[in-house]
Amino acid sequence: MPSTTTPVSIRRITDDSASDAEDLLAVEEPLEIVVVARARGAEDRAERRLGITMRTPGNDRELAIGLLFAEGIIASAADVVAVDEGEGPSGGLVRVALRDEVTVDLGRTERALAVASASCGVCGKASIDVASFAPPSPLARGVPRLAPRVVHGLAARLRGAQAVFGRTGGLHAAALFDAGGALADLREDVGRHNAVDKLIGAALLAGKLPDPGAVLMVSGRAGFELVQKALRASIPVMVAVGAPSSLAAELASAHGMTLVGFARDGRFNVYAGRERVAVPAEAAR
Amino acid sequence: MPSTTTPVSIRRITDDSASDAEDLLAVEEPLEIVVVARARGAEDRAERRLGITMRTPGNDRELAIGLLFAEGIIASAADVVAVDEGEGPSGGLVRVALRDEVTVDLGRTERALAVASASCGVCGKASIDVASFAPPSPLARGVPRLAPRVVHGLAARLRGAQAVFGRTGGLHAAALFDAGGALADLREDVGRHNAVDKLIGAALLAGKLPDPGAVLMVSGRAGFELVQKALRASIPVMVAVGAPSSLAAELASAHGMTLVGFARDGRFNVYAGRERVAVPAEAAR
Repeated sequence: MPSTTTPVSIRRITDDSASDAEDLLAVEEPLEIVVVARARGAEDRAERRLGITMRTPGNDRELAIGLLFAEGIIASAADVVAVDEGEGPSGGLVRVALRDEVTVDLGRTERALAVASASCGVCGKASIDVASFAPPSPLARGVPRLAPRVVHGLAARLRGAQAVFGRTGGLHAAALFDAGGALADLREDVGRHNAVDKLIGAALLAGKLPDPGAVLMVSGRAGFELVQKALRASIPVMVAVGAPSSLAAELASAHGMTLVGFARDGRFNVYAGRERVAVPAEAAR
Repeated sequence: MPSTTTPVSIRRITDDSASDAEDLLAVEEPLEIVVVARARGAEDRAERRLGITMRTPGNDRELAIGLLFAEGIIASAADVVAVDEGEGPSGGLVRVALRDEVTVDLGRTERALAVASASCGVCGKASIDVASFAPPSPLARGVPRLAPRVVHGLAARLRGAQAVFGRTGGLHAAALFDAGGALADLREDVGRHNAVDKLIGAALLAGKLPDPGAVLMVSGRAGFELVQKALRASIPVMVAVGAPSSLAAELASAHGMTLVGFARDGRFNVYAGRERVAVPAEAAR
């Protein structure tokens, strides 16, 4: 397993001191993703470079699968024949071979993905139609039902689990919990989106999605694209340590997904789908 | 000026209470960016859709200019004939017309940008060659020279200035300071990269770059792509409230840029270019 952190020599400066020290940085390196698939109308399968993502090494196959799934290129792990890791021109490489029955409109995909770019938060969608992001499996209303104490406990469990993997202050985490608050799986990355792709990719490969009781927890803020990834995986509840954006709340609301923000320090806010969160027993009396 | 925050009805839940409340969310909406330029070898100028970025409305023209600059499509504000705001199919739109002398290889640009996608942290570079990100104006060694107390003060000034613009807990900030710690300009956005693009776009339009004394401060972490944007603008010092990534430190180091991380609570770490940071007077005695 590749290292997710790397030592670096730094100078540490306070008001009245300067000292040389060793610090740990979260590793960020390029990963090239290549798809081997039959193009629509073509006989043979062709290899097509999808792009390079900057990520923290580790769980690269899961990252590739999660990314292809989020982009709608595959519908499930059953569409994947083989996932191999290799060496790319600038670092790691993952090659994902799709089954013959899956025809990919690579031109369309490429166009859909053809967008600026190195800048974060840029997406290739031709238009942002909130209705178009409906989950493949409709979310069951009111399921799962979460006790407030379970939600309160998630942030601490996420932090505790992150500590096991190593903390640099620079790694985002995404985790799946069950409705009772038990940790199912956790992934880390310098990029929040990568952490979610790795987590969902792993769950897909393990045949654990869709899961009507799944709760997704993310260490940072909840933007539009994270909610979109959760919806695509038909995950009914997303909990963020940080703030949601307006479009994230709108998107969750439109599709009956529960979106919780600022889940820390014994409190949280419910921005959408509040029927899945039970009223605290004290307040209900 | 469009609103950067929007009110939303939420349920606020603590250990023993649940109450309905109004909250403010950072607005996240799509912005389409269109370039009007002469393609290499072509006679006429053509309009080309570059893509859609999810951003917090406001300073959209600056965002577009900063993004085109970061991507190497324009070399300076002098390459821009006109920047107009309009209505796109899914929200805002900015149309940037370039001067005739600037030929743009839109095919190449599109290919370079053709990459996954809605997922953050994905970049279109064919390879990550750290040497290729050299700043257009080489950075002067040891300039500017920063007193530790100036660096200590930046985080508080950034937070103070953010408070003026409105705080939702969900907006990232990027600011330019001078070497004495005076705030020159600040921009906010749900996306850290957008905040930096807006800030640099504004400075370009105002003719304030390159500036050998500029200090860029960002509210979050310092990833590879933010360092890349700063280098492209020949900014010699970048200070982050959060952690840098390994590639960010490597890139800064390779080009003689000063990279400071964890600048908060009266301390900070210098990850690259330490010769620009003076030793605290106390420690030097």
